[in-house]
Amino acid sequence: MNANASLSRRPPRRFWGWGLADAALDQRERAIVQAMLAGVGTQFEDKPAPRVEEIDLPLPRVTPPATLAACFSASPLDRLNHSAGKSYADCARMWLRRPPSAPDLVAYPEDEQAIVDILDWAQARNVAVIPYGGGSSVCGGVEAAVGSGFAGTVSIDLERLNRVLEVDPISRAARIQAGALGPELAAQLKAHRLTLRHFPQSFEFSSLGGWIATRAGGHYATLYTHIDDFVEATRLVTPAGVMQTRRLPGSGAGPAPDRLVIGSEGTLGIVTEAWVRVQVPPRFRASASAQFDDYFAAVACTRALAQSGLHPSNCRLLDPAETIFAGVGGGRTAMLVLAFESDDHPLQSWMARALEIVSSYSGRYDAEAVARSMSSADSVEHRTGAAGAWRDAFMRMPYWRDPAVGLGVIMDTFETAITWDRFETFYQSVKEDVSRAIMRATGQKARLSCRFTHLYPDGPAPYFTLAARAADGSVASALAAWRDIKLAANEAVVAHGGTITHHHAVGRDHRSGYEREVDPLFRQMLAAAKQVADPQGILNPGVLIDPVNRQIGATGVLTG
Amino acid sequence: MNANASLSRRPPRRFWGWGLADAALDQRERAIVQAMLAGVGTQFEDKPAPRVEEIDLPLPRVTPPATLAACFSASPLDRLNHSAGKSYADCARMWLRRPPSAPDLVAYPEDEQAIVDILDWAQARNVAVIPYGGGSSVCGGVEAAVGSGFAGTVSIDLERLNRVLEVDPISRAARIQAGALGPELAAQLKAHRLTLRHFPQSFEFSSLGGWIATRAGGHYATLYTHIDDFVEATRLVTPAGVMQTRRLPGSGAGPAPDRLVIGSEGTLGIVTEAWVRVQVPPRFRASASAQFDDYFAAVACTRALAQSGLHPSNCRLLDPAETIFAGVGGGRTAMLVLAFESDDHPLQSWMARALEIVSSYSGRYDAEAVARSMSSADSVEHRTGAAGAWRDAFMRMPYWRDPAVGLGVIMDTFETAITWDRFETFYQSVKEDVSRAIMRATGQKARLSCRFTHLYPDGPAPYFTLAARAADGSVASALAAWRDIKLAANEAVVAHGGTITHHHAVGRDHRSGYEREVDPLFRQMLAAAKQVADPQGILNPGVLIDPVNRQIGATGVLTG
Repeated sequence: MNANASLSRRPPRRFWGWGLADAALDQRERAIVQAMLAGVGTQFEDKPAPRVEEIDLPLPRVTPPATLAACFSASPLDRLNHSAGKSYADCARMWLRRPPSAPDLVAYPEDEQAIVDILDWAQARNVAVIPYGGGSSVCGGVEAAVGSGFAGTVSIDLERLNRVLEVDPISRAARIQAGALGPELAAQLKAHRLTLRHFPQSFEFSSLGGWIATRAGGHYATLYTHIDDFVEATRLVTPAGVMQTRRLPGSGAGPAPDRLVIGSEGTLGIVTEAWVRVQVPPRFRASASAQFDDYFAAVACTRALAQSGLHPSNCRLLDPAETIFAGVGGGRTAMLVLAFESDDHPLQSWMARALEIVSSYSGRYDAEAVARSMSSADSVEHRTGAAGAWRDAFMRMPYWRDPAVGLGVIMDTFETAITWDRFETFYQSVKEDVSRAIMRATGQKARLSCRFTHLYPDGPAPYFTLAARAADGSVASALAAWRDIKLAANEAVVAHGGTITHHHAVGRDHRSGYEREVDPLFRQMLAAAKQVADPQGILNPGVLIDPVNRQIGATGVLTG
Repeated sequence: MNANASLSRRPPRRFWGWGLADAALDQRERAIVQAMLAGVGTQFEDKPAPRVEEIDLPLPRVTPPATLAACFSASPLDRLNHSAGKSYADCARMWLRRPPSAPDLVAYPEDEQAIVDILDWAQARNVAVIPYGGGSSVCGGVEAAVGSGFAGTVSIDLERLNRVLEVDPISRAARIQAGALGPELAAQLKAHRLTLRHFPQSFEFSSLGGWIATRAGGHYATLYTHIDDFVEATRLVTPAGVMQTRRLPGSGAGPAPDRLVIGSEGTLGIVTEAWVRVQVPPRFRASASAQFDDYFAAVACTRALAQSGLHPSNCRLLDPAETIFAGVGGGRTAMLVLAFESDDHPLQSWMARALEIVSSYSGRYDAEAVARSMSSADSVEHRTGAAGAWRDAFMRMPYWRDPAVGLGVIMDTFETAITWDRFETFYQSVKEDVSRAIMRATGQKARLSCRFTHLYPDGPAPYFTLAARAADGSVASALAAWRDIKLAANEAVVAHGGTITHHHAVGRDHRSGYEREVDPLFRQMLAAAKQVADPQGILNPGVLIDPVNRQIGATGVLTG
């Protein structure tokens, strides 16, 4: 077993924040962060980031079996990297040098059989197992906070199961190992001129298995919004054996087996591979942005677009406050980012009709810019225009938060979905409730904004961003304030009729809302299904539901 | 309790065949049936159809509780009508005056509370319960064949829960009671200028709850193929209590609760109502039909259309043999029926691109007819053209089978889905296997044809139709032959990689294929979930899975 240096073969990660250990902000990004900090009444300052040596970890309570020892690590860096995800609170606790409960060991299995063997061992020794893909959870999904009923905790990192195993270009599908991160699977698919075209913001640091386990949201604003829509078949290793679903384009044979796996958040088993539907990269593209003086007119416009059957690939509405956060507006008008893409056909008619709809709701756009967007036929992989720049910035945003956390600034997001008929009341009520919580917790007026990330014919998926600073500017105060704000946000979205999560998952942090949202009878059925697959209840305890035979509850940062 | 006349308030049904008791074939239809019969070597003859008086039913073994007696019926007609669905074998057994096991009683609850009460009573008395919507199952889904472990059997008919309870025109959604048949809910939605736009062939005699319980396939050839895609929330009455899911346009909160209800085939509970996504009736329409000399070129064309992102509402490919069955061709060329529809935009660009694809695969079409199809802007409800005629004929087809069954002719269909890469081999292998079974069972050369009912980017849903006549022309021989052919078809579709059912459901008749197709671990998880909702295992025993505490198996026509 490895005890010192990391066993990971990937570039070193920043255990106290987002992404790569050696990532740095460029001048332009520093300016953006500067502006954000000014907005909450403080300024940029380079605080010394947490170092591994500053943090005391308890000694591992378990030792791996001799036959598997080579893939186990007790290295402090590996344990820290696997002790939490990337929520605001996860980072804040690291800044405080009070890390979340670290796993006793981290395992890096080389193949599926090693996972089977580790589960056998863990089950026999009453060791809790936390499945770990990219570790980008923002809801306490990979945290080793499992209560006191276990002999120890092991985080199983799937980084070595990262290959595209098979490609079927005829059906446009590929069999991919679950540990493959976004860029890893993209590079392998690109060799076949294919792409999964699923780009969550965590793309670089999240894995196919993680997307499936958490029902991740991706690239498309309409139609194929979740990874759910791309899954053709799954393979799940459970303590009770392997469950393989059949590769099918569609079926009506009983309740869909994949739909039990998708969203199971590591509580039923470990997804080891999946057949997913892939795409030919788009050759045609059209994009537009429109301004609206009246936010609710803009909302009605997105509703018309969502119900039009035009299926835009992007249809992102920023409320006035969000345009400031995103650095694309002055906070007086709402902005709609609209795009179509296709590998099959030019998009003039699609965009033309969409813009008719935009105009009919008094949206304003630059017709020449739209025309220019349609003239280019380069592939997305090589694009350099505004959309490409936006995507790059989008992927970088989590890095911008890192210095802010060390300065006692809370930056967080929460997301939901709600039907159109209730949206206006919902939007106002959630903003009121959460603003009040921010004021209560920090004494500050809220910086709270909203964008739509995905749209359905029957409702939008609103995504809220908040920023606040603790009264005394300390990380400890900010973390305490965050707890109150987060509980208020959980309560607000569910009480006003939304879902506790549209695509960030439940984990430990959203469990209070999940229990309010989902019928107890369904949760009992889920727990019964879990007992079949995981009879000892060792898999990701505390996430989503409790095992039938253990009372764990949400033991993460919110209640711990 | 009612003992003689039917308690049903609906127009009398034909217990021995399809649809309404007083339905009759017109001259044109008789000619079509005549031609079909000639194809299998026999001719039209008006045989006396089964009458209730000819059939001996055992006395009911249970009596309803006094408080609920008013909604119970022991009328022979009601019991016969609820003793089976509408598969070929169901009808053949009626022609033989040897009906499938009839339920002891039929209940017509007036409201959800009555269903709760009936389940309480049934659970206490060990009475099996068969949920009954429209009774159009073609796979043994509503048959009262429950094995010997029960004190009796009650069929619960939801015909009185048939109202649209609430309409949300903003989100385009409606709350509808599960017992509403297609035309009932269509009429109520029409008052709001809305439509569910889900038209299974059984539309007139199947219910929303039945569609949800069986994952029915509907109108759209692509994108929204199953009722699954329209379900926003469900309400399920189980012996353990009521389970209500939240009305949401999308969510990522754990495994999707609705997806456990959808496809549960009455084994987990009785769906009493659902919120479903509805549509504004289309104002624009475009349709085309194309001929292909090479069937596999036509298959490749449908694949290109399915992967184009154009999302045709209809894209139905008939193989050469199927064009004869459908009365639209001579059996030498394959035919593609292609259509687009929208309530938002004209469809010239969509159809133009689709026809480019058709041409590139050497498909031939009549450009003038296509142009004419686009000039009309009348709503589907009032349309009179070819598409309307086709739909009307499509809905009438099940009636055409009725006289054939009495003449010892087997007419049956089976459907599946398979990925594109395997389709060509699959098609040939399934045709070979099933043709061989038909020859073995009847001594006849097979009449076996195939059409695509639905298409996905990764594969089609092939739908096979077969006709054969028993060597001695007797119904009894035909039924025996059908058993062999059906088992061979079940085996063929699953062995060659397809699903046992794309939208007809599993029921009792497809259970052998279902058990081969779906991982045992998933079926154990499903059984564990069932034990929570239905601890005594009284709900639809033998369908889909066995309850944990009872060994029932498929007890319907195939193994009984």
